[in-house]
Amino acid sequence: MVVSPINGSSPLSHSNGRTIPLSTFSRNSFVNVEKGDPVAFRSYWEKVRDECTVEIKGDEWMSYLGDTNNLCWYMVPQMRDAILRLHNVVGNAVTKDKFLVLGTGSSQLYQALLYALSPSESSHRPINVVAVAPYYSEYKDATDILQSRLFQWTGDAALYDKDEPYIEVVTSPNNPDGTLRVPVVNSRVEGKIIYDLAYYWPQYTPITDQLDHDVMVFTFSKCTGHAGSRIGWAFVKDIEVAKKMIRFTQLNSIGVSRESQIRAAKMIGVICDGYKNLKSIESDHLFFDYSKRLMKERWEKFKTAIEKSKVFTLTKYPTSYCHFNKDLSEQYPAFAWLKCVEGIKDGESYLENLKIRTRGGERFGVSSKYVRVSMIGTDDEFNELCTRLSNAKRE
Amino acid sequence: MVVSPINGSSPLSHSNGRTIPLSTFSRNSFVNVEKGDPVAFRSYWEKVRDECTVEIKGDEWMSYLGDTNNLCWYMVPQMRDAILRLHNVVGNAVTKDKFLVLGTGSSQLYQALLYALSPSESSHRPINVVAVAPYYSEYKDATDILQSRLFQWTGDAALYDKDEPYIEVVTSPNNPDGTLRVPVVNSRVEGKIIYDLAYYWPQYTPITDQLDHDVMVFTFSKCTGHAGSRIGWAFVKDIEVAKKMIRFTQLNSIGVSRESQIRAAKMIGVICDGYKNLKSIESDHLFFDYSKRLMKERWEKFKTAIEKSKVFTLTKYPTSYCHFNKDLSEQYPAFAWLKCVEGIKDGESYLENLKIRTRGGERFGVSSKYVRVSMIGTDDEFNELCTRLSNAKRE
Repeated sequence: MVVSPINGSSPLSHSNGRTIPLSTFSRNSFVNVEKGDPVAFRSYWEKVRDECTVEIKGDEWMSYLGDTNNLCWYMVPQMRDAILRLHNVVGNAVTKDKFLVLGTGSSQLYQALLYALSPSESSHRPINVVAVAPYYSEYKDATDILQSRLFQWTGDAALYDKDEPYIEVVTSPNNPDGTLRVPVVNSRVEGKIIYDLAYYWPQYTPITDQLDHDVMVFTFSKCTGHAGSRIGWAFVKDIEVAKKMIRFTQLNSIGVSRESQIRAAKMIGVICDGYKNLKSIESDHLFFDYSKRLMKERWEKFKTAIEKSKVFTLTKYPTSYCHFNKDLSEQYPAFAWLKCVEGIKDGESYLENLKIRTRGGERFGVSSKYVRVSMIGTDDEFNELCTRLSNAKRE
Repeated sequence: MVVSPINGSSPLSHSNGRTIPLSTFSRNSFVNVEKGDPVAFRSYWEKVRDECTVEIKGDEWMSYLGDTNNLCWYMVPQMRDAILRLHNVVGNAVTKDKFLVLGTGSSQLYQALLYALSPSESSHRPINVVAVAPYYSEYKDATDILQSRLFQWTGDAALYDKDEPYIEVVTSPNNPDGTLRVPVVNSRVEGKIIYDLAYYWPQYTPITDQLDHDVMVFTFSKCTGHAGSRIGWAFVKDIEVAKKMIRFTQLNSIGVSRESQIRAAKMIGVICDGYKNLKSIESDHLFFDYSKRLMKERWEKFKTAIEKSKVFTLTKYPTSYCHFNKDLSEQYPAFAWLKCVEGIKDGESYLENLKIRTRGGERFGVSSKYVRVSMIGTDDEFNELCTRLSNAKRE
């Protein structure tokens, strides 16, 4: 990484933001599957690229205000409309009688929720924030970065035994291990639950239920693959929670990019139009059909590679009925969660030796025998990953 | 404000984000000049709207990553290039040998800076954050919202007499009162200074110096008027401060909207191209010339109205040489800062009776004899404001 300060002469590249795929990996180059950059779905958006073109003129969308008639005043009506339509099409969440709060990605909404769900009286001790391990590697740092007196990271929800107020984060399907989750804390004190539903979309998992929780968080990044847009949203039952979240977002960033909202609304519109015109469209042009097929093919190839390697075992997932696809289906999580076989202690180091960069179990609150691998990178990365894993004979 | 939850039947408007100007205000409708929504410059962008059109295709700008060769990995090269070019054209800041950190508006950069400038050892007491009153009304809440153990709002910098670490926020030109500021704290302990230069652009003030401070924050909102884009940037001398800011932004929102960056880069490009082609372009098409003339006209009209009212006095500003315009010029701040004459105690209430909504002095850490009025709203709002002020004879 070049870290030199500005000197006026450093070269500037002028790509249009599409990674130029490396057609070959040299033996010494790393396959980086450590991050969860969801670029796998780009091939779909290439097919419909012109249909999805967004044009913004110089004098449009200048104001801080998106919709003064909405509690979430920085959200434009098109964005709200698109989000409601998407959930109506997919059937993964009950949106009725809830407040919709928009965020700069779900990361900002997580912060806003910690603030909104914490007791506001300063006499209180910080509320405990917990999640069952393995949990998303950024929750701890995102919770503790500012050393707030309102909330603090307390770790594994499965070990939580305090009779104190708490917030349990339930990520379902879970990052990193793809399992479907429910709250586990059993305390005399009533807890608050944040459902992080970033991966509750048909390409990753059967849509088994139309979820109807008090706090549900979604993100555009993992739904369509447009991570650069930084759009997330939450459905919130309690107006006081929604108001506090909006106040947080006001102080934190005075709302959410208008350009991103307009574009996200457009992309969601294209997805929903496809399902509306179901009979006149090739199934390859239906976003969730396309992306599910892609995930299925990757998982099948990946499982073969893992079996060949004899170094790792994989999490097993149940088959369930998907109300969206109207079929029985397996899960195809965005990440593979590998466990080393007996005798290997550190999965990340093992794979590092194979020039595969991953994120080790300790980052997720469990042992280094586990390791997370992204399944949503570029085709080239993924194929090279499978080749290297297949050849990874135990020494 | 409609605050009802989603019921599936609420009407959605489908405007393109341009406020339809109210051509007449009824006697009972409020003129809202409380906020600082910078929509005054829309008339300029209407002139060049097609030239400024940005088109984004479905498969573009999908990744979290903007430029893996830059410390600020979520910033695309076009954005970086445009920001450097703009400062080169305007000459308001030295950008050489500094790190450029992009934020979701300057609000996010303020939070990132408090984090980055605070001592990280938890044994420390919170660092004191101060600014000379009157100070920007959101600093206090933005500092204290999460009750951080790292930093705390301590109020008026002019009254600060502790020998403890501190951060002084120097907003110059200042919001609300438009004055040019320098640090004032005189402590035995060395302080850290955040220069908030949101209004250090030629339409508001003569560009007297090319500023060269360790931490300088700018925002796109107040420069061009595109507040909805949520783009801000900071120039930072110390790489460790820059790194911490980028880590904060990663945890807070995983970077900054790519769509906003592309659009901001385009708009800045149009401004800079104008000054490059100086001789072939009408001065009405030069952004800072146009916007300065607009501010000057508004201020002249406003001063006449204030004089007629005999209720308020205005801050006096010096005339200085502007290196950008190459002339002697007054300041034309984005806000007017009014002081009530003897016998009137509460400016906000007084104006509320005239159906003018403003922000009172107490929000800025001073007495309610003062009141802030936005000078950058729509033409209609501004004209109605002047009419009502002119007629505001003291009872």
